[in-house]
Amino acid sequence: MAFLSDIEIAQQAKMKPITEVAAQLGIEEDDLEHYGKYKAKVSYDLWNRIKDDEDGKLILVTAITPTPAGEGKTTTSVGLAQALAKLGKKTTLALREPSLGPVFGVKGGAAGGGYSQVVPMEDINIHFTGDLHAITSAHNLLAAMLDNSIQQGNELNIDPRRIVLKRVLDMNDRALRHTVIGLGGKPHGMPREDGFDITVASEVMAILCLASGISDLKERLAKIIVAYDYEGKAVTAGDLRAQGAMAMLLKDALKPNLVQTLEHVPAFIHGGPFANIAHGCNSVMATKYGLKLADYFVTEAGFAADLGAEKFLDIKCRLAGLKPNAVVIVATVRALKMHGGVSKDKLGEVNMDALAAGIPNLEKHIENMKNFGLPVVVAINAFPTDTPEELKLVEEKCAALGAPVALSEIWAKGGEGGIDLAEKVIAACDEKNDFHFLYDEKLSPKEKITKIATEIYGADGVSFTDKAEKDLKAIHDLGLDDLLICMAKTQASISDDPAKKGRPTGFTVTVREVRASAGAGFIVAITGSIMTMPGLPKKPAALAIDVDENGRISGLF
Amino acid sequence: MAFLSDIEIAQQAKMKPITEVAAQLGIEEDDLEHYGKYKAKVSYDLWNRIKDDEDGKLILVTAITPTPAGEGKTTTSVGLAQALAKLGKKTTLALREPSLGPVFGVKGGAAGGGYSQVVPMEDINIHFTGDLHAITSAHNLLAAMLDNSIQQGNELNIDPRRIVLKRVLDMNDRALRHTVIGLGGKPHGMPREDGFDITVASEVMAILCLASGISDLKERLAKIIVAYDYEGKAVTAGDLRAQGAMAMLLKDALKPNLVQTLEHVPAFIHGGPFANIAHGCNSVMATKYGLKLADYFVTEAGFAADLGAEKFLDIKCRLAGLKPNAVVIVATVRALKMHGGVSKDKLGEVNMDALAAGIPNLEKHIENMKNFGLPVVVAINAFPTDTPEELKLVEEKCAALGAPVALSEIWAKGGEGGIDLAEKVIAACDEKNDFHFLYDEKLSPKEKITKIATEIYGADGVSFTDKAEKDLKAIHDLGLDDLLICMAKTQASISDDPAKKGRPTGFTVTVREVRASAGAGFIVAITGSIMTMPGLPKKPAALAIDVDENGRISGLF
Repeated sequence: MAFLSDIEIAQQAKMKPITEVAAQLGIEEDDLEHYGKYKAKVSYDLWNRIKDDEDGKLILVTAITPTPAGEGKTTTSVGLAQALAKLGKKTTLALREPSLGPVFGVKGGAAGGGYSQVVPMEDINIHFTGDLHAITSAHNLLAAMLDNSIQQGNELNIDPRRIVLKRVLDMNDRALRHTVIGLGGKPHGMPREDGFDITVASEVMAILCLASGISDLKERLAKIIVAYDYEGKAVTAGDLRAQGAMAMLLKDALKPNLVQTLEHVPAFIHGGPFANIAHGCNSVMATKYGLKLADYFVTEAGFAADLGAEKFLDIKCRLAGLKPNAVVIVATVRALKMHGGVSKDKLGEVNMDALAAGIPNLEKHIENMKNFGLPVVVAINAFPTDTPEELKLVEEKCAALGAPVALSEIWAKGGEGGIDLAEKVIAACDEKNDFHFLYDEKLSPKEKITKIATEIYGADGVSFTDKAEKDLKAIHDLGLDDLLICMAKTQASISDDPAKKGRPTGFTVTVREVRASAGAGFIVAITGSIMTMPGLPKKPAALAIDVDENGRISGLF
Repeated sequence: MAFLSDIEIAQQAKMKPITEVAAQLGIEEDDLEHYGKYKAKVSYDLWNRIKDDEDGKLILVTAITPTPAGEGKTTTSVGLAQALAKLGKKTTLALREPSLGPVFGVKGGAAGGGYSQVVPMEDINIHFTGDLHAITSAHNLLAAMLDNSIQQGNELNIDPRRIVLKRVLDMNDRALRHTVIGLGGKPHGMPREDGFDITVASEVMAILCLASGISDLKERLAKIIVAYDYEGKAVTAGDLRAQGAMAMLLKDALKPNLVQTLEHVPAFIHGGPFANIAHGCNSVMATKYGLKLADYFVTEAGFAADLGAEKFLDIKCRLAGLKPNAVVIVATVRALKMHGGVSKDKLGEVNMDALAAGIPNLEKHIENMKNFGLPVVVAINAFPTDTPEELKLVEEKCAALGAPVALSEIWAKGGEGGIDLAEKVIAACDEKNDFHFLYDEKLSPKEKITKIATEIYGADGVSFTDKAEKDLKAIHDLGLDDLLICMAKTQASISDDPAKKGRPTGFTVTVREVRASAGAGFIVAITGSIMTMPGLPKKPAALAIDVDENGRISGLF
């Protein structure tokens, strides 16, 4: 059997007009704002009609700690939604929107894989409905108003040495990380240090993804801390009176985007904040629409369960009033063997010792999710090299923790390959659950951070650098101690050391820096170096990309 | 009578679904890519079906030299199209797409005025169909690939001191005019001087507006000169192999956008290059579609006839093989009085001497257009303070040059107010004309520049600074002498001195700098300081802009 590439499968797909996809959910033509035939935004009017309907079941898809072997979280999310639909359940899906920057670097697209993809895949990866461009504009308008305020007399008394807002571009462009702007003399602004982040790292992205509507959006935007004045007081976007114009630029970006999976399951693709310095989930708006419109709603969170799921549960669920019904943890036998110490080139060989040594990574994530009071289903994303004895070992270990395991073949077979998984998820959703947050927001920031580090990561404790202590003091003085915690930690380990695989123990987490994302509503605790502006590699993917006279793209993925 | 503001008129308008507007032109549903209910892109397939149809009549709307009194060129273009439609003519219109940056500065929106506007006005001014964002992305991808090439070994031997490509943002942001990038050490790029232009100043914008299709677009993009190497050789986007990925980002932006006027006349709004460092006209694609789809096609060019119309005729018509049928020159009595020396606060008073002193500005523009072999109609955009004797003087003077004058009330009355103008334009289009270009492209750049300066501006001659001489030598060495000429000159005077009103004589034009826009296909001759990145004013328009919970915008214009 000759395998087709993801883009070949996507380009061969016969999509339904988005009007038909929407009609499955009872969405009428008037509630859609079309972007071509296969993409639409849903209106605010629709929300007003459905907001009192009952929510469907909320299923969060997360994963073990990622390895170079890959685990297939997005693919599983798409495949699970397709499988639920095959079982006759009214199902919706919500995923994050990919960033344009990485498309030209190494990574290629992000829209699932094999026969579990969202389409139109190319559009989703390039421009899509323009939401990321709107965020870039809104963020950079705020930056321009900030520098203009200094230039035009500096009535807010802003200290140019203490500006914390950078500019953003949706591009991998390392040369913009550290810049000096305002050069050229008096008519051209105040010289100062500046820099660019990639758009998905913008606090505006995090805010868009947490806002419940335009009024809430404006309130959050107004709270963004952009700088400090000469007396050390925080200066906000509200002080610059920028939130109205920013919200105007974002008014359509806030509306969820509807597309479909290869099997025509309605899928919202909306918002994509970083999973380190932000919370890493699709928008609250998409989640709310998705829950109201279906009986089963599938969504995912960035990175592994220690980062993405923790933030989904402690930040997004708290701020949006959500109650999940089940958590799916995606793993592969190959990745578990890597956690057990096997190198990538040896993953095809059976190695029961390595598998046994790697399974504790999965166990820790299961325990963590169970500790939130939620039922867990493990999805083993099947590879041709997996053996029955390997799968049996995983099943036994998970059973001991009360987590059923489903072998998932959704990459090769689409929804049909996820029937067992879907049935186990439906059963889990029918269980009574005892969902609760990990921490009380009234705890001090240090206590909240320590609770996450010890209970979720398994650390012995947390040490705060002098810089972090100073930052926490400033946050306390700003009256922001009650904000939630957003951990910025390596995704390559449950600990803060990327080299520690499996289930690390006997370590202390070091918090090096703490920042307030006051608009998003969380404090970012930074435990390592976090890259907020990627670079291009020696041979960027862009070199191979082309488009022909009829607009057909090649070389994209 | 209480006057409504432009935005009130636009918001009260009852638009037709864009499908109906398109159907008037025989465009079918399958040829449209919808962006909401009232905006659509037209497909490349449509072009393949209509390309052998006969062209309609091509009417160019231009204007006298602008003054603070305003003249209403875009409003007249829209009103004329509406009047032609009222007379039963199958009519289309094409205009430039406004830039987002100025929306937050002083200017407000740009979509006509009064009862001669294109709608949905707010969308057209904000994001629209994302074309400008696509241009920003494509341009900045090229810049990122350039800096990446230097960082990854610099195999093209690029001299970081001789990089001519800046980055762009669609924002008024003076602090980005002059920057230093690549700071922070070896992993973060090569430190060098850089800067940002506003997106509409990008050569990519000029190229998009001149390209006849994706293949032509790619060829032009590949020719963009981005830098020089250590041996002085030009380095192009093609050398960086960026044109394929750039064209992919632009594949939808190249498709014309269809909207409607307040009276439902189909209007293409597509592309908006600067009218100084670029050619200042909407896209060739929109013009070609518009000409094929209607019997009468109305378009405009930036600034006054000495800049916009000259470039429309010498650059756009030559590169796209267009033959105009008539030129409309828009004037107001008030603006002519300003050219005659009256200050803005005295424009309400009758002043025949000042009017007589100002009319030569109009006369010079009429003569210029006649010298291209084209019939001219003068549209006097009516103001309540105009008197019959003032209008009579204008008519007499224009009649002496063979140009009929129509009083136009399209601001207050829409198409109904432009019937006289439309009838005179129809008559002009029926005249046999002798259209020809001003200069032969085989002349040397100096000869071409001199021909424009002496024959169009009325200069005694041209002086070239040492810098300009050096630039011309470099252009000669690059083999680019045959490129067309794009003059970058003040719009406030027919001369290169903004203080000289009316019809200046006895002056010499000074060319200070010459740049090659090799992808666009022209040499830019710069005669003064040209602002390519505007700033925000002390009280930016952004401060007053807001949007409510239902997405309704206020304070925009």
